[in-house]
Amino acid sequence: MRTLNKLRKYGIYVLFFMLLFAMVFQFTADLRQPSYPVFKKVEANTTNRMIIVVTPTYKRMTRIPDMLRMANTLSHVKDLHWIVVEDGNHTVPAVQQILERTNLPFTYVAHKTAVGYPRRGWYQRTMALKFIRSNTSHILGKDHEEGVVYFGDDDNSYDIRLFTDYIRNVRTLGIWAVGLVGGTVVEAPKVTDGKVTAFNVKWNPKRRFAVDMAGFAVNLKVVLNSDAVFGTSCKRGGGAPETCLLEDMGLEREDIEPFGYEKEKDREIFVWHTKTSTPNIVQSKKNATKPVPPPETFGYFVEV
Amino acid sequence: MRTLNKLRKYGIYVLFFMLLFAMVFQFTADLRQPSYPVFKKVEANTTNRMIIVVTPTYKRMTRIPDMLRMANTLSHVKDLHWIVVEDGNHTVPAVQQILERTNLPFTYVAHKTAVGYPRRGWYQRTMALKFIRSNTSHILGKDHEEGVVYFGDDDNSYDIRLFTDYIRNVRTLGIWAVGLVGGTVVEAPKVTDGKVTAFNVKWNPKRRFAVDMAGFAVNLKVVLNSDAVFGTSCKRGGGAPETCLLEDMGLEREDIEPFGYEKEKDREIFVWHTKTSTPNIVQSKKNATKPVPPPETFGYFVEV
Repeated sequence: MRTLNKLRKYGIYVLFFMLLFAMVFQFTADLRQPSYPVFKKVEANTTNRMIIVVTPTYKRMTRIPDMLRMANTLSHVKDLHWIVVEDGNHTVPAVQQILERTNLPFTYVAHKTAVGYPRRGWYQRTMALKFIRSNTSHILGKDHEEGVVYFGDDDNSYDIRLFTDYIRNVRTLGIWAVGLVGGTVVEAPKVTDGKVTAFNVKWNPKRRFAVDMAGFAVNLKVVLNSDAVFGTSCKRGGGAPETCLLEDMGLEREDIEPFGYEKEKDREIFVWHTKTSTPNIVQSKKNATKPVPPPETFGYFVEV
Repeated sequence: MRTLNKLRKYGIYVLFFMLLFAMVFQFTADLRQPSYPVFKKVEANTTNRMIIVVTPTYKRMTRIPDMLRMANTLSHVKDLHWIVVEDGNHTVPAVQQILERTNLPFTYVAHKTAVGYPRRGWYQRTMALKFIRSNTSHILGKDHEEGVVYFGDDDNSYDIRLFTDYIRNVRTLGIWAVGLVGGTVVEAPKVTDGKVTAFNVKWNPKRRFAVDMAGFAVNLKVVLNSDAVFGTSCKRGGGAPETCLLEDMGLEREDIEPFGYEKEKDREIFVWHTKTSTPNIVQSKKNATKPVPPPETFGYFVEV
């Protein structure tokens, strides 16, 4: 009681020190602010799902710049594990360094396309699915119980919101529009009463899942509950492997959660199937009977 | 004196409250941590220079994805003002929204190419230079006294370090290597004893500044001390405008500060002159005598 009385009497000093402390902390808090601008739209991971992005890649002149741009995009997204699979016998130090600079958790491995597979990343994505199944707890880490798997190629263009607003919220199978793909300006699911009943695509619209690799993501539990992989061919997909994979995972059209269809017009596209032009490099052809020497790089690293 | 004695007596309570406060603040500081990963290499702006990036742009099917990727890159860099100049009669809401989401300070204006200018961004960059000269204090803001001007196109590929390690440190005229440009895998300044004596380029190497638009940046004071702009032609540049601009700014080869030449081999390239392929869109040609209708976009926004 005596202590309380005294405290009441000298409370003014206590308050003064508390205020002083608060002021000092407020000041240092300003200094602790991140010194770089950030996208307004990057939101907290309210679902606690880990995003697992699978990217097959291969040596070409434009690969390093393509990977740079994709790294600059993905590094805005929190709780994302990037699995990059090289179509080759070994990984490439320059790619490894790009991945390290993202500060993201990542896996970079090399699996040269096996005999019988087309050289279109199918084998690399198959190896990634197997890696995900046998290293699930490593990829999820101790902070995550759920995940979503997305196949994102290194030359596509991504809006950050594809990850924060679409992929992060996929409970089973998410599907959305893709720009500049399949010979059209946009491919999109056709949505009636919130359900996907057909696909607005030009090529092969009768497929159960007429969707490009960039246009869907599946919840990790779907991946873990099946042993479906990309095979060497897909007849039901008219040659494209997407519908075979999703059918082999036991999915039906009713399982689709469509994203981004709500507006009547000016709907936004969050992923674009861009391609980087092959540069027109002047080759020196002094003697046609000898093989053309590789272009001069003046000590700079270019994958020629 | 009486007060001090009492304070000494009840100092324990004061200390207790101070500690409590510190603990609460420490706890909330953890919550205030950025919840997204960031590039390790983004460093403090020790020079206090503002980076001013000038980007001419124009309507095309791949423009939105190109601008998206560039926005994702630039938004990693602090103290950067992005000037985007539309070659058209008015700005485009979809581009405006991309710029707003970067959280960067930016200027977005429309200047349709004037008669006599080639449609290659020269007029838009000229308008940007005039804007910089008449709005210097607005661009610099109250926290900056110096700046660096860089011409960065929306389809190039940029390493974040181009801005943090190269452009930020330009005192007069900085020059560095550019990948996949001028018909070669790399164009670079030739450096002897720290000085640029020639240029490792295939096309027109005799120019005083044989450098691509993406390969140099000039300190803001150089821009402000001249009224040089991009004209309608540049004979000294063999048609390319870079050397005319730099010569008109009163610069000599001795003014060049070369970047990134130190290593003998495996030198890194921080900017690539990539081009996005024009997508091969299937046009419906039901009746050859009538004009072809624009492609179906199903309510999604695509610049067709």
